[in-house]
Amino acid sequence: MKTATQYLYVLSKNKQEYLELLKSADLPQLEVTEDPSLANILLASPPMASEVINDFPNLEWVQSIYAGVDALTQPAPRSDYQLTNVKDIFGQPISEYVLSYSIAHFRHFATYKQQQTEQVWQPYPYACLNEKTLVILGTGSIGAHLSNVAKAFGLTTIGVNSSGKAPENSQFDSVFPISKLNHALSLADIVVSVLPKTTQTKGVLNKQSLSHCKQALLFNVGRGDAIETEGLLSALEEGYLEHAYLDVFINEPISQQCPYWQNPKVTVTPHIAAHSFPNQVMGLFKDNYQRWLNEEPLKAIVDFNKGY
Amino acid sequence: MKTATQYLYVLSKNKQEYLELLKSADLPQLEVTEDPSLANILLASPPMASEVINDFPNLEWVQSIYAGVDALTQPAPRSDYQLTNVKDIFGQPISEYVLSYSIAHFRHFATYKQQQTEQVWQPYPYACLNEKTLVILGTGSIGAHLSNVAKAFGLTTIGVNSSGKAPENSQFDSVFPISKLNHALSLADIVVSVLPKTTQTKGVLNKQSLSHCKQALLFNVGRGDAIETEGLLSALEEGYLEHAYLDVFINEPISQQCPYWQNPKVTVTPHIAAHSFPNQVMGLFKDNYQRWLNEEPLKAIVDFNKGY
Repeated sequence: MKTATQYLYVLSKNKQEYLELLKSADLPQLEVTEDPSLANILLASPPMASEVINDFPNLEWVQSIYAGVDALTQPAPRSDYQLTNVKDIFGQPISEYVLSYSIAHFRHFATYKQQQTEQVWQPYPYACLNEKTLVILGTGSIGAHLSNVAKAFGLTTIGVNSSGKAPENSQFDSVFPISKLNHALSLADIVVSVLPKTTQTKGVLNKQSLSHCKQALLFNVGRGDAIETEGLLSALEEGYLEHAYLDVFINEPISQQCPYWQNPKVTVTPHIAAHSFPNQVMGLFKDNYQRWLNEEPLKAIVDFNKGY
Repeated sequence: MKTATQYLYVLSKNKQEYLELLKSADLPQLEVTEDPSLANILLASPPMASEVINDFPNLEWVQSIYAGVDALTQPAPRSDYQLTNVKDIFGQPISEYVLSYSIAHFRHFATYKQQQTEQVWQPYPYACLNEKTLVILGTGSIGAHLSNVAKAFGLTTIGVNSSGKAPENSQFDSVFPISKLNHALSLADIVVSVLPKTTQTKGVLNKQSLSHCKQALLFNVGRGDAIETEGLLSALEEGYLEHAYLDVFINEPISQQCPYWQNPKVTVTPHIAAHSFPNQVMGLFKDNYQRWLNEEPLKAIVDFNKGY
């Protein structure tokens, strides 16, 4: 049990909101500081933390406010502290994003919207999700949550991860190792990447792998560099992919010259598949802070070598 | 156990497809006939059946190919036969329709689509379904299925039906009797009508009842006359309803003069929330036909008095 005062530094675009939440949370022995030399705990956006992390001589713990911690691990500017990320709150919004867009596609909602403006009444045949297969690259908390919700719609779900082993309490119909990615892609009606950014995941969705898809929908809601742009554009043009829904990109916002904007087979969204809401992050931080004080293992510890 | 030959007459726009499915099903003792005076079983669209039902002197059983059988019950041209409808296959497509459109609304997908054409990168805050309440009018097989899928998204679900009692094996958080409709509507973020057409359900969603809504989304995927058009338009204008998704109408197709077409708060779809696919209907018919031969109770028997 720690008895000394803990000093917390906050690094976020929503700093003011976090400070107010911290104030009303009134956590024991916790003092918010503006002095990096005093702070032993950082509640931070990883990209912002990576810029200044060496200014914190007494750093012991960083609670990331995102799921993606690549800015602190790929490569790691330092690793002499405990890094925890955010789990269990992004599965819900990402499941909504993927399933809503998938249904809208298979059920022709864009066509009906156009027909409404033209006052045309014309139904079309459709397929339901219970006839479809969803391949999820990444079987961590987000991928497992997505699989669970997808099962409620009767989707067949296949996970792909480094080990090929199903995570505990998950409902994947099967899990393949990344070495069998091409085979998994050949079975997919919908492919979703929730992969973190690591050296292993960079460019796994490329011209070669995507050529195994059969008119699939592709979602990228993980990290931008899991996809090779040229390979994606060619897979769309050649029909291996029917449509791509892209929410994350190597550089955000994407440039005005980016070919995705005006490609009718691409849906671009501005990194909104899963937003990090301060009140949700604070719930996790409060729990982890109590563990910290009690000297219990923290939740959602990141392995600096794996990068997630 | 029936031993005589059974004579089946088919009445559907998809007659040819049904005839082929019947041929390959090769059901025992079943002969398809074109002679109404011979037929004792009718596999039929209710609106088509209602026109000619008195031409069948030996009619014993009508298997409807739709869920809605109002054309044969409101009022009933005759009731000296067993009427069965289609259950358990419309819950899936209706759940997809309601949940996809709801998510698209709360997550601003229409705005992002517009922004993409303008090459604008601008995220907006959003709410997830697990903070929302879904009120479902009608707790039969479709409503119960919708509630089950909605629970996977964390929605709170409230059913409304004639008795106020939850149906067996359903997952509604609560069920209100129709006498408490106004209270139920006041709790709703999303209202879905899957009500059948009966004298009790006509116009239940009107200016008075809808004025209890608080910026709700309204879906009509049951029957058109559950809604009073003027009351709906006024509830949209006054903000009790934020948007209406209408898939069923008193007269279909709706006329070119219909005010729904060009109302920006109304989404019109051409009766596609749940299509009756012959291969799915045939699965139910085969099961019921075996029961018929065995003289066992049929599944999904319609009560002529209730109308469902």
